Amino acid sequence: MKMYDLIQKKKEGKALTAEEIAFFVDGYTDGSIPDYQASAFLMAVCFRGMTDEETAVLTEKMMHSGDVLDLSRFGDRSVDKHSTGGVGDKTTLIVAPIAAACGAVVAKMTGRGLGHTGGTMDKMESVSGMRTTLSPEEFYENAEKLGICVVGQNKALAPADGKMYALRDVTATVESIPLIAASIMSKKLAAGAKNIVLDVKCGKGAFMKTTEDAEALARAMVTIGTRLGRRVRAVITDMSTPLGTAIGNSLEVKEAVEVLRGGGDERLRAIALELSSHMLALSLGIPSDEGKSLAEKAIASGKAFSKMKEWFSAQGGDTGMLEDSSLLPEAKEQTLIFAEEDGYLCEMDALLVGTAAGALGAGRKTKEDQVDHGAGIFLLKQWGDKVKKGEAIARLYATDKEKLADGKRLFSSAVRYEKKKPAALPLIYKIIS
Amino acid sequence: MKMYDLIQKKKEGKALTAEEIAFFVDGYTDGSIPDYQASAFLMAVCFRGMTDEETAVLTEKMMHSGDVLDLSRFGDRSVDKHSTGGVGDKTTLIVAPIAAACGAVVAKMTGRGLGHTGGTMDKMESVSGMRTTLSPEEFYENAEKLGICVVGQNKALAPADGKMYALRDVTATVESIPLIAASIMSKKLAAGAKNIVLDVKCGKGAFMKTTEDAEALARAMVTIGTRLGRRVRAVITDMSTPLGTAIGNSLEVKEAVEVLRGGGDERLRAIALELSSHMLALSLGIPSDEGKSLAEKAIASGKAFSKMKEWFSAQGGDTGMLEDSSLLPEAKEQTLIFAEEDGYLCEMDALLVGTAAGALGAGRKTKEDQVDHGAGIFLLKQWGDKVKKGEAIARLYATDKEKLADGKRLFSSAVRYEKKKPAALPLIYKIIS
Repeated sequence: MKMYDLIQKKKEGKALTAEEIAFFVDGYTDGSIPDYQASAFLMAVCFRGMTDEETAVLTEKMMHSGDVLDLSRFGDRSVDKHSTGGVGDKTTLIVAPIAAACGAVVAKMTGRGLGHTGGTMDKMESVSGMRTTLSPEEFYENAEKLGICVVGQNKALAPADGKMYALRDVTATVESIPLIAASIMSKKLAAGAKNIVLDVKCGKGAFMKTTEDAEALARAMVTIGTRLGRRVRAVITDMSTPLGTAIGNSLEVKEAVEVLRGGGDERLRAIALELSSHMLALSLGIPSDEGKSLAEKAIASGKAFSKMKEWFSAQGGDTGMLEDSSLLPEAKEQTLIFAEEDGYLCEMDALLVGTAAGALGAGRKTKEDQVDHGAGIFLLKQWGDKVKKGEAIARLYATDKEKLADGKRLFSSAVRYEKKKPAALPLIYKIIS
Repeated sequence: MKMYDLIQKKKEGKALTAEEIAFFVDGYTDGSIPDYQASAFLMAVCFRGMTDEETAVLTEKMMHSGDVLDLSRFGDRSVDKHSTGGVGDKTTLIVAPIAAACGAVVAKMTGRGLGHTGGTMDKMESVSGMRTTLSPEEFYENAEKLGICVVGQNKALAPADGKMYALRDVTATVESIPLIAASIMSKKLAAGAKNIVLDVKCGKGAFMKTTEDAEALARAMVTIGTRLGRRVRAVITDMSTPLGTAIGNSLEVKEAVEVLRGGGDERLRAIALELSSHMLALSLGIPSDEGKSLAEKAIASGKAFSKMKEWFSAQGGDTGMLEDSSLLPEAKEQTLIFAEEDGYLCEMDALLVGTAAGALGAGRKTKEDQVDHGAGIFLLKQWGDKVKKGEAIARLYATDKEKLADGKRLFSSAVRYEKKKPAALPLIYKIIS
């Protein structure tokens, strides 16, 4: 078998066999297929696509390129949740303890963010003492005892994806539904959960800009997971404006705690309940409305917040910071942003708000960068709110004045004012299963 | 400027600016742009194509990546001829002396063949003593004195093309009209002739299988050359069956001599006159029918054959071998092929006949291989000829029995017999200028 022939075949729009896909994944991972052939092949895939069968085989081979976690000890109860990424998305911090409090097992891996704001791992680490690197024994033990344990992504998971993604990232071959789906799902499948709930974001602040693209990606991922024996559900949610009021690591922890304590932002709470309902539906084998009612009760009873504290405590986190959010790190330099006109806030553009948060220090540009846990944005007013000129609409946090100025400038470009109240923003577009 | 952005732009189907194309060619040639980005880019070009403007700029940049020959001393009379490659194509050996005998200057470079049969350089070298590496001084002196000099391709010509072609060859990105056109024309333009006649072959034994593709390539090349100040004409000719009766280096020299002496195969003679007529039309500024009549007279008067002998003699070739073709090398092992049925010969497939010639030793698979100058095929019957079962249709030549057996087996698969006389094969499809 020759890589040249596989490139030619895909260039002509033909489907590759399972053997051919295995040849590519194995050969690229072990270095026998050079980067220049892989990138030409990946570009051909961008133009020609892949069949469901090809995509599933690609994902399976990528998944088996490294370690595969064995969560079989948790039977059908293990559940993972993945978001394709958005601004102000702190749902894992909310849904993981809710699901665990209701009997599911959330033994999962998560990443550091590379981009505007930190990842779940960065958010967790904004709580003093919180450890995200545990031994396998400790990981399984915590999960068994508490039903929840979240650690940093294991580098031995799906190394083929790591290598392939690095190449795609520099050859403009990231944007391809089958390649994106295979990349995400190879890691999720290797992480071992029987049940997987996917939050596919869509809109200006998301990778998928349109509902059509988001739906295509969601369907591709559900199809892959189902073909490979998992129970998968995808929720397509809005990311045209930030999710919730907080953007930035410790600020988001604070907001997650608010939701778990029964308060918090309306939209954030709604998405968290929606995701939890599907996590519970899959892992407990119940209808999703029953799952939602369980989730609501877990919040109302305080069980979900207790579970969050148990979770953090087991990993060394200072639960005092969860009990009293004012103890969480907060960047010293702060400024308020004031409305420039009377009217309604709209075009609170998620991408631009995210960029502003990045400039404030909440994210990282390279893997080596450190995030400022206390930096970010707290929205006092949101998309669609009526404002008066001079009224405070947001508070910005940074560790130094220069970053604060950068963030302020960028934040201003994210907001637009209208005389007429804008139509309500959609929240949940579709459930794909 | 970043290569990533250029790949993305081309992937989206947008045209690159001249600065962007220069950035790519310069960067790829000097190694600052890695192979894996270049191959992804080239694959995107395969799918999205290039505008005439982009293709011309690409060609110009590739041309200027190395030496550019200065033939300005010959004014408007310098003329080059290029064939996209076919089986039994020995026209350069015929048209170069015809054109020179009529007052044009053919100071050109040619290549060794990589494939079924040798290139013009291999054919020239089948004549004892013939030198294909001359000093620049000798090259120009011969051209000035005789109007003809043909040497091996200078490696310093269009090195960007060499590097890019090597990458395309292993990444299935060869088949792209703008890339093929730029590759051919960058070398032709660097070789300096004011006038260029292109023989674009089409059919089973050619790179372009259909007349549509051949025409598209011809138009692309004519457009490039014209934009860059040259006079270019392309002739689209048939390559579904070998051109002439001889395939193999010394056999082809013999057949070229026959045509220059006023005899030879009908189709070969017709194509040679057609190409000569356009070479003369462009370089002397006359109508092509006048060019054809000049060419016919050059043959009839013996001037063209005399010019061939002067040409070979000036480069050290043994003209005795041209006077008496039986002195040309002839491989010892020979066999006749006999018709297997009564009927008409058809499907004398150029590609398969070429493959058989390659097996006999007439070509080379790698640059390091040596060709057997005396190996090849002489057709006693051609496409459309009536044959009787058992009648000899071809003679095969090889240096050893094993190669002879291989060639024999392959040659048989190239021939098909029909009861009905097949329709006449086209010869010249179109002139593009």
